[in-house]
Amino acid sequence: MVGTTHPGNIGAAARAMKNMGLSDLGLVAPKIYPSAEANARAAGADDILDRAQVFASLDEALADRQQIIGASARLRTISWPQLDPKACAEKVIGNADLKTAILFGRERTGLSNDELERCHYLLNIPCNPAFSSLNVAAAVQVVAYELFQAAQAAGSPVADAEAASLLANGEELESFHGHLLQTLHSIGFLHEKKSSPMLVRRLRRIFMRSGLEKADIHILRGILAAVQKRTRL
Amino acid sequence: MVGTTHPGNIGAAARAMKNMGLSDLGLVAPKIYPSAEANARAAGADDILDRAQVFASLDEALADRQQIIGASARLRTISWPQLDPKACAEKVIGNADLKTAILFGRERTGLSNDELERCHYLLNIPCNPAFSSLNVAAAVQVVAYELFQAAQAAGSPVADAEAASLLANGEELESFHGHLLQTLHSIGFLHEKKSSPMLVRRLRRIFMRSGLEKADIHILRGILAAVQKRTRL
Repeated sequence: MVGTTHPGNIGAAARAMKNMGLSDLGLVAPKIYPSAEANARAAGADDILDRAQVFASLDEALADRQQIIGASARLRTISWPQLDPKACAEKVIGNADLKTAILFGRERTGLSNDELERCHYLLNIPCNPAFSSLNVAAAVQVVAYELFQAAQAAGSPVADAEAASLLANGEELESFHGHLLQTLHSIGFLHEKKSSPMLVRRLRRIFMRSGLEKADIHILRGILAAVQKRTRL
Repeated sequence: MVGTTHPGNIGAAARAMKNMGLSDLGLVAPKIYPSAEANARAAGADDILDRAQVFASLDEALADRQQIIGASARLRTISWPQLDPKACAEKVIGNADLKTAILFGRERTGLSNDELERCHYLLNIPCNPAFSSLNVAAAVQVVAYELFQAAQAAGSPVADAEAASLLANGEELESFHGHLLQTLHSIGFLHEKKSSPMLVRRLRRIFMRSGLEKADIHILRGILAAVQKRTRL
């Protein structure tokens, strides 16, 4: 974060970073830092603040960086390579061996032209052109979110075999539908209606759409059994 | 935003919304509102705050909503349908004719279980499991960003107003659930079970997942009425 004016934004950015598993915060010439307000807004991400490196100049901060990306409102005047947050995250995660810095500028004025020219890429968050100034911590949140997404995608997503095993199978579904129709006949609901086929199809659709689990079937059949028991009395 | 404690977060959420071209902010029982702090953090999105609707209860806010999505930390105990922000945005933009609400809960405690059960889908922002509580305005920012992305990708979303008009709204769903529980009590199904809260939640989930239409509700309530009539004899 370059030349940040409000310490609350530094704290909020630290929180956003920690939420998304990031930890390496650098502060270039912050106006007020350290600050109780930063810690309050960090809401438990104090460790990120404690470890934050404070630099007197951008040169110092970027000395060992190999890939530099600068957040900026959309620039039409110069045709620097521009990335959206997703493409930015793919660059960072895809080139994980590079030492990368993502620069976020001042609240009112962003990064200066000199600072933007230090960047390999510019990062632009697509937004409402009539109201395009994001809060700096909100911008950090969006970029951190995309970094987390890209890191997850790059890992090996674990199959959700457990959830799949809970789902009812065809046989269980058919038994349930049979039980349902039998019960609706026994209480006279289906007898009364002349439009049974449409009605039966609609009922079936309600439950098919629902993606019933084995445990759901168990409960629903419990209800049907209770209805049958009462109506038999 | 439900039960928001800090007005600054309301302002920051309004700014995030306006940055991403959203305008329809609803506030359910905010602790402090209106507030100068909200306006300060809105940083020019005062029009969103001026037009925000304030509701005394969630019921009131959801009465006409047809698609309800609740932001929540990842729940492992119940398997409600979960969306990540991108999938959430696709649901919202893909079903642009539905009246949708996306609920964001209290700063410390989020949405209650009762509130989550009002939702068709839960929205979970993937993040660091060891530090998973996002600031509420930061969560709004991430979701608004994905909505903007999805809207851009969709170009002009195709209208499916006819299908939308068939879907049950929040009020119809609640009346149905009330009728269902009343019937299950009257046949003794719920009395017999000690594990009612879990059971009731599971039942609610079955029907919420199903995307009930008004006509479905009509049939299901017809069945409940038939059961009640028989068991009264």
